[in-house]
Amino acid sequence: MAKINSNYKNLSQNYLFSEIRKRTAAFSEANPGVEILRLGIGNTTEPLVPTVLDGLKLGVKKLSKVETYTGYGDEQGDIRLRKALSDWYDKRGIKLSDDEIFISDGAKCDAANITSIFDTSSVVAISDPVYPVYLDTNIISNKKVIFLESTDKNDFIPDLPKEKTDIIFICSPNNPTGTVFTREKLKEFVNYALENKAIIIFDAAYSEYIQDKNLPRSIYGIEGAKNCSIEIQSFSKSAGFTGVRLGWTVVPKDLIIENSIPGEINKLWNRRQTTMFNGASNIAQEGGLAALSEDGQKQTREQVQYYMENAKIISEGLKSLGLKIFGGVNAPYLWIKCPKGLTSWEFFDKLLNETHVVGTPGSGFGKMGEGYFRLSAFGHRENVEKAVKNIKENLKL
Amino acid sequence: MAKINSNYKNLSQNYLFSEIRKRTAAFSEANPGVEILRLGIGNTTEPLVPTVLDGLKLGVKKLSKVETYTGYGDEQGDIRLRKALSDWYDKRGIKLSDDEIFISDGAKCDAANITSIFDTSSVVAISDPVYPVYLDTNIISNKKVIFLESTDKNDFIPDLPKEKTDIIFICSPNNPTGTVFTREKLKEFVNYALENKAIIIFDAAYSEYIQDKNLPRSIYGIEGAKNCSIEIQSFSKSAGFTGVRLGWTVVPKDLIIENSIPGEINKLWNRRQTTMFNGASNIAQEGGLAALSEDGQKQTREQVQYYMENAKIISEGLKSLGLKIFGGVNAPYLWIKCPKGLTSWEFFDKLLNETHVVGTPGSGFGKMGEGYFRLSAFGHRENVEKAVKNIKENLKL
Repeated sequence: MAKINSNYKNLSQNYLFSEIRKRTAAFSEANPGVEILRLGIGNTTEPLVPTVLDGLKLGVKKLSKVETYTGYGDEQGDIRLRKALSDWYDKRGIKLSDDEIFISDGAKCDAANITSIFDTSSVVAISDPVYPVYLDTNIISNKKVIFLESTDKNDFIPDLPKEKTDIIFICSPNNPTGTVFTREKLKEFVNYALENKAIIIFDAAYSEYIQDKNLPRSIYGIEGAKNCSIEIQSFSKSAGFTGVRLGWTVVPKDLIIENSIPGEINKLWNRRQTTMFNGASNIAQEGGLAALSEDGQKQTREQVQYYMENAKIISEGLKSLGLKIFGGVNAPYLWIKCPKGLTSWEFFDKLLNETHVVGTPGSGFGKMGEGYFRLSAFGHRENVEKAVKNIKENLKL
Repeated sequence: MAKINSNYKNLSQNYLFSEIRKRTAAFSEANPGVEILRLGIGNTTEPLVPTVLDGLKLGVKKLSKVETYTGYGDEQGDIRLRKALSDWYDKRGIKLSDDEIFISDGAKCDAANITSIFDTSSVVAISDPVYPVYLDTNIISNKKVIFLESTDKNDFIPDLPKEKTDIIFICSPNNPTGTVFTREKLKEFVNYALENKAIIIFDAAYSEYIQDKNLPRSIYGIEGAKNCSIEIQSFSKSAGFTGVRLGWTVVPKDLIIENSIPGEINKLWNRRQTTMFNGASNIAQEGGLAALSEDGQKQTREQVQYYMENAKIISEGLKSLGLKIFGGVNAPYLWIKCPKGLTSWEFFDKLLNETHVVGTPGSGFGKMGEGYFRLSAFGHRENVEKAVKNIKENLKL
């Protein structure tokens, strides 16, 4: 008699996006013809850049000819792409060999799967608020989770764990708060990990939105990080690959945890991926290669700046109303303190009713998100401008 | 102090393909200029068919325009593709709703991940020999595994488990033996599962190679299967998507295991996929839709027949030498009894040395594979013909 994995029963239902859909639909029904302006979703909206499109087309074309057709590739990814990423890091002063880089179909899968290679006795620290995948997958993996509170008291960058912790998930730039670890703060965490033989899982999916050159875009810019950190990265937000699906994970050979020998964790992830994954799409990988070319990087950087200009428009608009805003400077997310002590959902309703703008209640990202609200800079400029105009003209404060 | 998931230590190292590479390289070094003929790998070799290429091109084109660009889609897959698959099953007399079909990036990931939604106390039955992913992932998932022996005594279709079993993996047509469950045999397993509230994971990735219309291409053609079976499928072998990456898994709402209510397992897999997966590539999905169109199906069927003609050429050639062959009639794999009581590796060396043909030792697929050898029908015709000619002329029997 087969039984269900009971860890799944410990998951709380996350009604966040379905509740947003429900309330938005109800508003539309009650107000036919009113245009809804969506600033809620962390999803890219702009077409792929020309060089990347050429790469994807090349990927398809190769599959049309017997001489260039490819079936299964290496589960770890096309060696050309692994080398290109090794070069990409090299230009940032970070030395990684190609076999320390594992190509995947996106950061979400890797962020979800990485915990499975560690013992269930591990205690996992996760910021609150944060992207829900870390919490849910560690619950499924039956690990004890402790929360590192991120509040306005610590500028939404958590302090070191106070209790014994084995695995620490860091998302920087953070989703949803849009705040970024400083070098000094990240060094504190690296030192903690080295001292405690803990491991840091560093999700850098939004690194390309960092404008301030002093902020770390990779954890490997911090001394000692290669001995204690895994970095998860993605083409989703930097090149518009949210639908194309491509990311990577770095597992340095120098990484050591309790009783492990150098290279062992790298081999373990290699075993996990070769056993349970069959490589990212060869078409997507050809697109990724194009994104890393000189032209590709130039064009995708411009696209990132387009979204960051959106962030600036939203930020300035809301600040002019006296709202308190975090993030949005080195990240595509703005984290808004709900005015007048409103809860996240109360502000959601107010914003929708008064301005027709849909955002994301902060409470959906953890207990400490209550009383906050996330707006996303992903969107067409015209839509963003309309939303900000509506807010400025109609939000009753 | 983080620790490694010790289940990984219970995995045996599978040196199969690396050992093949090593011995082949050594032969090439000792015999410079000799052409190696590879019939070992279960990987497609022929270019994608025109209609599928058009679909993929359309997928890329859509990403070039603001009106048609898409980012994150539903984790469960593009609703158009889910509906097209529901229609595809309907034409085979099987009724499945679109929300019982989950699109993935390939059968391997689903076959690997599916066990994670069941309790670790579950006893898992796996045929021996078989595709190694089922065994390895159940070891990683810390489940007890029992083996169902497939030998020439049962025509390489296993008998029912003799001890209490909760989850049964069936791969039909089988990799590596190329044998196929009959309706009667599959009904026995379905009845066993219904009686024992066990669950069957039916891997049908090679179903389109079945030529005999009386053999089941989907488990859902068997009465009662919807109450006890999950089916895993793929575009890899039917449409040449081994590198493009696209598959699907069916979790019927009628599926019931111990203490579960109808729809619960479907919801559980939905939760797993929405939490840990971010959907298959939108480009690949557009290609999948094209493959399911009338023209797409016609063209991909012709490609399958091309590989099956290869199988026939290999089969007839080897039989003419008096070798005993299983499979290769309704599957792209041929399972050869090693002559003269040779072990799988002894026959590997003999075949390589005498005929320059590289195949796959059966012992790499399980204990019962010892003394057998797998040849694959995937390959260019010219290469297959050369290999068979070499075997016929030079294999010393």
